[in-house]
Amino acid sequence: MSGAGSAAHAAAEAFRTYGWWSGKQKGALLRAVAARLEAGGDEIVRTANEETALGLPRLQGELARTGNQLRMFAGLVEEGSWVDARIDHARADVRSMRRPVGPVAVFGASNFPLAFSVAGGDTASALAAGCPVIVKAHPAHPKTSRLVGRLISEVVPQGVFALVEGFEAGVELVKHPLIKAVGFTGSRRGGRALMDAAASRAEPIPVYAEMGSINPVFILPRALRERGAEIAAGLHASVTLGAGQFCTNPGLVLTTAAGGFVDELAKRMSATPCAPMLTESIADAYRAGVMRFASLAERKAFVEGGAALFSTSARNFLAHRELMDEVFGPSTLIVECESRERLLEVARALEGQLTATVHAAGGEISEYRDLLAVLETKAGRIVFNGYPTGVEVVPAMVHGGPYPATSDGRSTSVGTRAIERFTRLVAWQDAPDEVLPDELKESNPLRIRRMVDGAVIPSREDGDQSPT
Amino acid sequence: MSGAGSAAHAAAEAFRTYGWWSGKQKGALLRAVAARLEAGGDEIVRTANEETALGLPRLQGELARTGNQLRMFAGLVEEGSWVDARIDHARADVRSMRRPVGPVAVFGASNFPLAFSVAGGDTASALAAGCPVIVKAHPAHPKTSRLVGRLISEVVPQGVFALVEGFEAGVELVKHPLIKAVGFTGSRRGGRALMDAAASRAEPIPVYAEMGSINPVFILPRALRERGAEIAAGLHASVTLGAGQFCTNPGLVLTTAAGGFVDELAKRMSATPCAPMLTESIADAYRAGVMRFASLAERKAFVEGGAALFSTSARNFLAHRELMDEVFGPSTLIVECESRERLLEVARALEGQLTATVHAAGGEISEYRDLLAVLETKAGRIVFNGYPTGVEVVPAMVHGGPYPATSDGRSTSVGTRAIERFTRLVAWQDAPDEVLPDELKESNPLRIRRMVDGAVIPSREDGDQSPT
Repeated sequence: MSGAGSAAHAAAEAFRTYGWWSGKQKGALLRAVAARLEAGGDEIVRTANEETALGLPRLQGELARTGNQLRMFAGLVEEGSWVDARIDHARADVRSMRRPVGPVAVFGASNFPLAFSVAGGDTASALAAGCPVIVKAHPAHPKTSRLVGRLISEVVPQGVFALVEGFEAGVELVKHPLIKAVGFTGSRRGGRALMDAAASRAEPIPVYAEMGSINPVFILPRALRERGAEIAAGLHASVTLGAGQFCTNPGLVLTTAAGGFVDELAKRMSATPCAPMLTESIADAYRAGVMRFASLAERKAFVEGGAALFSTSARNFLAHRELMDEVFGPSTLIVECESRERLLEVARALEGQLTATVHAAGGEISEYRDLLAVLETKAGRIVFNGYPTGVEVVPAMVHGGPYPATSDGRSTSVGTRAIERFTRLVAWQDAPDEVLPDELKESNPLRIRRMVDGAVIPSREDGDQSPT
Repeated sequence: MSGAGSAAHAAAEAFRTYGWWSGKQKGALLRAVAARLEAGGDEIVRTANEETALGLPRLQGELARTGNQLRMFAGLVEEGSWVDARIDHARADVRSMRRPVGPVAVFGASNFPLAFSVAGGDTASALAAGCPVIVKAHPAHPKTSRLVGRLISEVVPQGVFALVEGFEAGVELVKHPLIKAVGFTGSRRGGRALMDAAASRAEPIPVYAEMGSINPVFILPRALRERGAEIAAGLHASVTLGAGQFCTNPGLVLTTAAGGFVDELAKRMSATPCAPMLTESIADAYRAGVMRFASLAERKAFVEGGAALFSTSARNFLAHRELMDEVFGPSTLIVECESRERLLEVARALEGQLTATVHAAGGEISEYRDLLAVLETKAGRIVFNGYPTGVEVVPAMVHGGPYPATSDGRSTSVGTRAIERFTRLVAWQDAPDEVLPDELKESNPLRIRRMVDGAVIPSREDGDQSPT
């Protein structure tokens, strides 16, 4: 049996027990993983620094984030109310909750060797749900992946976690009958291939692919006039942050009458030197993307291999849909719209996005309600007077968005709701109390929040809240 | 433009306003639909009675259920907390909630001309979510569909509802770029075709197909000994209810040492005369299924065109996977397992199911924890000492289950959670209060339940609950 095949069998075997671990047990496991990674943090960061060009401060920050994510999900499952427990004492006694879906395949990302990779958000949320995880390591950082995988395996029971490598192993996982869901962060081409493979299985399974986007930034006229220079500075920082290698990198800017703003931003961009990128192949793809845009856009300002700025008319932009493609790296395109209507037309023409950003002066936003209504159908997160890079890891966060930003616009891969991706609903009808999961027993031994006969009973932690 | 195409365009246009209707507005609309259908109830029931063989009492009951479902979702959206509103006052102010996904295509079912058809559960939950609905009428009851469609159109704004007919129109809807989700109740072949069509779109969309199942009933040895005759009577009633034309019809019974139980059930089944089925083609398919099973099972008891009972050994059952196919109608198959281990083996070999049922004597269930653990991975609802037919329309209900019972085992098509199928998550970051949906405004004007900085604040209706 192949590595992927035997890992899938071991995961299915482990699921029989791990799938029934209590929230407390799973929380302790996730905290143990976080602690083990932090204890090995120096070695992890050193290894990742040898394999990537991200640098120590960023890698140290990413390690901290990785631990925080694991602990966030630990807290969530220890508290326990996330399962959406419901009880109806109807003609029949019906009780239901979220249950783990089974073994999950996770594809590590190139651009986050720690926080969206072997021990990243997908792994943390799947383990928290009660699903064994098999990670397919990203080839951009194999040693880091192996090291993190080894440290996880030291604290996790047999079968609950495994690491495989290689393109073939990844495809085999997605097609394996014992795998019940897939998490992925990467390119649109790679994500769509996994979606198609999963949809063509005898038993189709859900794929949660985060495929990036161009994250449009709309600068409304008064905001541009009142604080154009400030926005240029902020935008420059966001576009070039981490050499532009974030899925929330703003690759498209839409304005009316951009004039001096383009000059201001061009000055900053063309003075930004070559920043080393994650891998040589990512750098090659970036250079190719910049050259493609250079041949299509009317104005350009860039240094070879460094930050790049293009600007073009709305007419030209709408005529060349390839200008909506993501150029992964520190590049952005300004589209100058000659009117408010043109701005709306461009907004309506956009594909699904992780984020959309609006800069508006005081009171100006109320004149653009129609734009906001369009953006709400296009993006998972709408940012006001800020920049899309920087995704807060909080319960309310939505890091998702309509296709092709993700494969499944209903979900989020960041924040506590990410756990819901790896669950399914199960109901018990007229079950003896002793066979019910603790979450559904009549006496509510875990004191979690539940909906009972249509009304919500607070949890032990909600208990001291008063209604507002 | 075709009927389906123009309906999709009208729905997309209507979504721009309907998608922002308040819960109170949507609730009033759903109540108006229910009232209009009830006012026209005599004509609806009379028309359905001419087109189907279901009979007046069943059709009257189904009309009442249809109204109740519409009012259940009305109540849900009027209360408003279903949107899962979350607010975090973090470094950034992040607020998120469920939003409607856009125009939805609904395929009416043959076996429920009212409650799972034009104004059925899929339509009610999609309209409640804020999605315009285009129903593709089932050809088994076209006049009923047109009548119900006309009555809905009398009270619903232009574009929010439309009815189309014909196979081609249905396919066109699923492939239309403006359609964002699909609801379906019907055959596995039909459901899978829609899943494949939706997955191969330029922008894949979710399909919620409820494709039926064989709903295994496990009768444990002591239960069989202590109340075999009673179970035989209950099972006979469940198998033959509505001529067996329910997706929760028990088509498979598993026991150890069935002996006298098979005789008991055979006596009842072979005395059950031909009941008229929904359509001639359903009746033809039923007769063909009975003949197929007759050629594979070792024992049989049936009357031509009437109720049918087969029994077979576990060995023969496992050797002929076609014995796991659904025979839509009043037929069931008893599989005699020579041991406890064999019973488990058969359970593990089953496909995904809407329901699984266990009959156990007092205390007996605790010896079968391993069986329950298997069933929990196979079914959306586990029934104890009862029968799977009869799906309570309550908040806790799960009418779903792993593929091939449904296309999306994460969801339910009955109960209040059905609304979640037609939504996606959207976050607002640092948004001015005036542009936020009421659900997310700082002052909580709707007084809904929200998660604020990780703690749940009760709604105006939860307010008087004390913690348990």
